[in-house]
Amino acid sequence: MAQAEFVFEETVRIYDTDTQGIAHYASYYRFFTNAIEKYMQEKVGIKYPIVNDDLWFVIVESHAVYKRPLRLGDKISVVLSPKAISKKIIRFDMNIFKDGEKTTEGYVVQASINPKTWKAIELPDELIARITTI
Amino acid sequence: MAQAEFVFEETVRIYDTDTQGIAHYASYYRFFTNAIEKYMQEKVGIKYPIVNDDLWFVIVESHAVYKRPLRLGDKISVVLSPKAISKKIIRFDMNIFKDGEKTTEGYVVQASINPKTWKAIELPDELIARITTI
Amino acid sequence: MAQAEFVFEETVRIYDTDTQGIAHYASYYRFFTNAIEKYMQEKVGIKYPIVNDDLWFVIVESHAVYKRPLRLGDKISVVLSPKAISKKIIRFDMNIFKDGEKTTEGYVVQASINPKTWKAIELPDELIARITTI
Amino acid sequence: MAQAEFVFEETVRIYDTDTQGIAHYASYYRFFTNAIEKYMQEKVGIKYPIVNDDLWFVIVESHAVYKRPLRLGDKISVVLSPKAISKKIIRFDMNIFKDGEKTTEGYVVQASINPKTWKAIELPDELIARITTI
Repeated sequence: MAQAEFVFEETVRIYDTDTQGIAHYASYYRFFTNAIEKYMQEKVGIKYPIVNDDLWFVIVESHAVYKRPLRLGDKISVVLSPKAISKKIIRFDMNIFKDGEKTTEGYVVQASINPKTWKAIELPDELIARITTI
Repeated sequence: MAQAEFVFEETVRIYDTDTQGIAHYASYYRFFTNAIEKYMQEKVGIKYPIVNDDLWFVIVESHAVYKRPLRLGDKISVVLSPKAISKKIIRFDMNIFKDGEKTTEGYVVQASINPKTWKAIELPDELIARITTI
Repeated sequence: MAQAEFVFEETVRIYDTDTQGIAHYASYYRFFTNAIEKYMQEKVGIKYPIVNDDLWFVIVESHAVYKRPLRLGDKISVVLSPKAISKKIIRFDMNIFKDGEKTTEGYVVQASINPKTWKAIELPDELIARITTI
Repeated sequence: MAQAEFVFEETVRIYDTDTQGIAHYASYYRFFTNAIEKYMQEKVGIKYPIVNDDLWFVIVESHAVYKRPLRLGDKISVVLSPKAISKKIIRFDMNIFKDGEKTTEGYVVQASINPKTWKAIELPDELIARITTI
């Protein structure tokens, strides 16, 4: 079965670009963050990444491969695909498309923690299901 | 009497620039922030902007006039000049020079607050003197 | 006659905030930039800030007064009001509201330049009219 | 033979942090960029990432694993270790230490391109040797 996907539209802004005329490589993590934050708020229906006083999501790994450059004003589609690695770890596969062509692929991995102890905690099954069922 | 001044050296980095080939206008506030943070830590000898649990500095106003563009790799001097507006408000006049020519002028105004109440509080005279005597 | 205004909705993202739990003061210039870029593209109908090979807009001044802090997840309205200072200089007054209360006011001033000479140039009257008539 | 390493000292600034009280995950790529730019300028002796009109370095992959959070004011050591993957591709392994403990590991991969054609080009052996011999 194909993995579910969720798509967000985004524009490359002047502050995302650098003097090489392309989006700076770190700017892509803003695109990834925007897509994940909107997904969690609008579709899963939780505040993100600070869910409540006992549950925060923190990023534990990030990765991106830049296949084609993006430039000022480019309209891009950020495609997000979530997967539970464990009850504590969610991975979001991220792909960026422009005019139907994939320009970028990467992923962001988050852990669930209790901010009072800064220890990883298990998510309720119900929440994992909501996050991973698009 | 001439106002005291403090000078920091800085380099314009690729992530400061945009596709116009110049430092993005918001990047200058990173230069200002760096200069103020280093000044407060290295010369005044306090943590900044979170001094302790009862004293934070928060920015209440920022301003910059961009006279000449800055570009990737430019070596700049950020000149900081502090002034107490009141016992609660400190203003830092900021000037940026490249090769002896002023490229940018601006200021950042901060208030002293108690983060528990988020109310402005008066700084001790001794601390005001340390901040404003370079 | 009241000055015309244009409103954009925005959300404060995790990368806009800092360890004081508020939007970092430089992040507001991202909100201002977003509002201006969307206004110029969607309403005026031009690419921005690089209009074409002979016309760029460059920022020559920026200012913000932070009256109330903004925090992660805040839904804000960025209200933009353009004014022609001359045929070469446009000023955008910016106000940010949250829950009907003004939290921030500021402005951004831009010059029209020819990027080949980096000299200020006069805008056509027709374009000034389009930019300043909301 | 142990791989050569180069160390840069850095401070976590307020604008690197977010409302979780830790350095935002994308900020680490600023630390990586700073280390690489300083290394290339100060040790290799070339402008970076725009070497000249015929040679640019562009980032084609980035990765980071966040083992321990970094916080405002933390003094960190960014350890850089370069390796030639081919005559066109250089990989920088990056490790961040605080108080002797590794907090972060990652890498950045760059390609050499001719900006006029945006095609990958081979670096001269002499330049590869200078980049990879610390």
